[in-house]
Amino acid sequence: MEVSPVYMQSDDSEQDRPAYPRLFPTGETRKSDHLKAGLCVDFPVSVVLPAGGTGERTGLQTPKQFCPCLGRPLISYTVESFERVSWIQTIVVVVAKENIGLMMDIIQRFQHKKVLVVPGGSTRHRSICNGVAALGEQRRPAAHKPKVVIIHDAVRPFVDEDFLHKIAMAAKEQGAAGAIRPLVSTVIATTSEGYLDHSLERAKYRASEMPQGFTYDVICEAYKKCTESDFEFGTECLHLALQYCGTNAKLIDGPPTLWKVTYKRDLAAAESIIKETLSQSACLITGGLEAAVALANVLQKVFGALNMELNVTPDLMGGNARHLLEDWNFIKVSVDPFCPSEVEAIIVALEAGNRALLNPAVIIWMHLSVTEEPSTSRRATESAALIDLASTARPRNILLYGIRLHQPEDSEQWDRSASRVADIASALIRDRNPAFVGQLLQA
Amino acid sequence: MEVSPVYMQSDDSEQDRPAYPRLFPTGETRKSDHLKAGLCVDFPVSVVLPAGGTGERTGLQTPKQFCPCLGRPLISYTVESFERVSWIQTIVVVVAKENIGLMMDIIQRFQHKKVLVVPGGSTRHRSICNGVAALGEQRRPAAHKPKVVIIHDAVRPFVDEDFLHKIAMAAKEQGAAGAIRPLVSTVIATTSEGYLDHSLERAKYRASEMPQGFTYDVICEAYKKCTESDFEFGTECLHLALQYCGTNAKLIDGPPTLWKVTYKRDLAAAESIIKETLSQSACLITGGLEAAVALANVLQKVFGALNMELNVTPDLMGGNARHLLEDWNFIKVSVDPFCPSEVEAIIVALEAGNRALLNPAVIIWMHLSVTEEPSTSRRATESAALIDLASTARPRNILLYGIRLHQPEDSEQWDRSASRVADIASALIRDRNPAFVGQLLQA
Repeated sequence: MEVSPVYMQSDDSEQDRPAYPRLFPTGETRKSDHLKAGLCVDFPVSVVLPAGGTGERTGLQTPKQFCPCLGRPLISYTVESFERVSWIQTIVVVVAKENIGLMMDIIQRFQHKKVLVVPGGSTRHRSICNGVAALGEQRRPAAHKPKVVIIHDAVRPFVDEDFLHKIAMAAKEQGAAGAIRPLVSTVIATTSEGYLDHSLERAKYRASEMPQGFTYDVICEAYKKCTESDFEFGTECLHLALQYCGTNAKLIDGPPTLWKVTYKRDLAAAESIIKETLSQSACLITGGLEAAVALANVLQKVFGALNMELNVTPDLMGGNARHLLEDWNFIKVSVDPFCPSEVEAIIVALEAGNRALLNPAVIIWMHLSVTEEPSTSRRATESAALIDLASTARPRNILLYGIRLHQPEDSEQWDRSASRVADIASALIRDRNPAFVGQLLQA
Repeated sequence: MEVSPVYMQSDDSEQDRPAYPRLFPTGETRKSDHLKAGLCVDFPVSVVLPAGGTGERTGLQTPKQFCPCLGRPLISYTVESFERVSWIQTIVVVVAKENIGLMMDIIQRFQHKKVLVVPGGSTRHRSICNGVAALGEQRRPAAHKPKVVIIHDAVRPFVDEDFLHKIAMAAKEQGAAGAIRPLVSTVIATTSEGYLDHSLERAKYRASEMPQGFTYDVICEAYKKCTESDFEFGTECLHLALQYCGTNAKLIDGPPTLWKVTYKRDLAAAESIIKETLSQSACLITGGLEAAVALANVLQKVFGALNMELNVTPDLMGGNARHLLEDWNFIKVSVDPFCPSEVEAIIVALEAGNRALLNPAVIIWMHLSVTEEPSTSRRATESAALIDLASTARPRNILLYGIRLHQPEDSEQWDRSASRVADIASALIRDRNPAFVGQLLQA
């Protein structure tokens, strides 16, 4: 089997990439941290991501793996899911020839490391086979011939380290392993005339999903022995391993997040998962001002009720700078007079940390005014400063919005105002809508 | 089989419900209109909607059929899908006893007609059986014993008339009919030890989906003859019809929109479909003002490029009042001085037409200022008027936003401004975010 030339992303070092927190998994993060020792894999594992699909079922012109979610192509999320796993060496992305340039741009723009781009074949199996062959041929200094190859889909962006670990270990022990899920619908056999023949007993069957893992030897042998008809019409790698290597795959129950982005609506679902993950917490910077601290205390309760954690800090200096790496959302409270340089400093710090490379960060500049209604010229200055900063931030993938709040006099009014501020701020954070950057909203 | 008391929504007349346009189908609307004659069904058809699920797979506390999409429970969209079909007589919704009150509230709030609420049984089949029995017992003046019963899921909100027609016709002719879809994943049989036994040949199998249709006699007989074990563990009505009545169901390929809302992400997907449908067009009211007409001309092009149709009209009087029934989104251009009564009139007209009963309508009040920067007091008056109107509109399910635009001097500036206005306006329309109502945004 001839393999076309391999396009390689040269830089193999991970050291020059900022240690920003990864997007997924989220609720699992702490758990994974505890398990880190147990998750160690002491054999080389690489990944093949077939991404040659044309996405006709989404009803979109762009193949779905290249469709943007929050401005980033879906496939970049999938690559990110594997890249964050320390024991995964190389991620081979197999794309149609006409999309190689596009894929190289994505790798460069989102600074992906570990990725090899390989031209696809005319069918899914030919593409996977090209990818596996490329793993055997690569001559990168740090790359070993893999013991285990994980095969996944470019359009299943949310796969977590725990599950990859299960697949890799089972593949090494059994020769092959695959994710399964319960069937959502009853499966029925049809007659040739389009009538019900019989329905399958749901409990005995499962949906075969991705990822799947194979020892390098098993997957190579399966592709060496399989027929042209397998290459042309086959869909299931596990089946080839069984048929040609006698390897019975171990089947492992996967989480529902492994689902495949198939229709246009699935893109909306994926985006909602990403947005929710980015919106779990926000960092409020008081500047140590008394009025800001009072506001923060009230806001913290309201955000809590909205299921959003609010971390309050006087500044982002010293140890507090950790918030720049932990949060995706920042609320800077300014008490008049408003000083744009405070917000500018946050933008500069986020940029220096390359924080918004993969996901848009949000800054809300909260104007807490304690004096009377500002004059027209004062308002115009404020608005202009906000618009200016927002257009500086936007190309850096930082979304800046403003909220103006007049400090209320009694505590009951405080609660009402805080509740309005929290509604607006949480909507801005959850929506991450670029159309509203630079707007100064009224609480 | 004993059937518990039937709760009935008394009003059977459709005449007192405004003839607002239905939400779905959308692209199909014109096609359906042409086919109307062909879609006639000359036998009584009723529907059973089992809605007893607890929604544990969504990870939400509320059962998913009662989860809100744009402020309306999912099940109300499903009921709406059937209610708009003229030849469907009765929709039996089968809910768990503890949710009967909730369901009655939904019926009242969204003025559903045709709905009977029936308490569910302990399993899906017992619930459907209760629903079918209720159809045989109802004593409503306009209700006939159905010839065909359509069974659907409460959590498949988007079913269109064309497909229901196919199912009803096939059910009448063959005794039973059901929707099928291609399998998304390969189906595999597992060994008892959790290994791959074999994979099914995908081409021979289909996923069995909803809706399904049965003649009343077939479904009654199937439930009369079936065993306690069928009631307890069975999932597939088509299977009962085959086993106990010898009826081979006709299988019909259904559209992908029939998918079942199963996980939390599916709610986001459903909401995105609803939002997209509501955002296909907007109506811009110029008031006949020259500056507004000029803005409309530029906006029309920009909206077109965003795939949104912009209908421009001088007013909503006489024949132009049809826009109140055809559009979900209104842009009222005011050239200073701004007159709140113009916007108030749209709110009143929408309310009089009960237009926003089922889906939130959007009004964008666009302030086109041709003079210099307004004074502080003038701005304050404008903002206060907008906030006032927005809080009047909100309880009527009308979302009012403002956009302020200073009239540019040359045509190049016009294009830039129009593009900004279109970005903001289309984002407001597509998002329909209640948190931003009453805000006056700057273009």
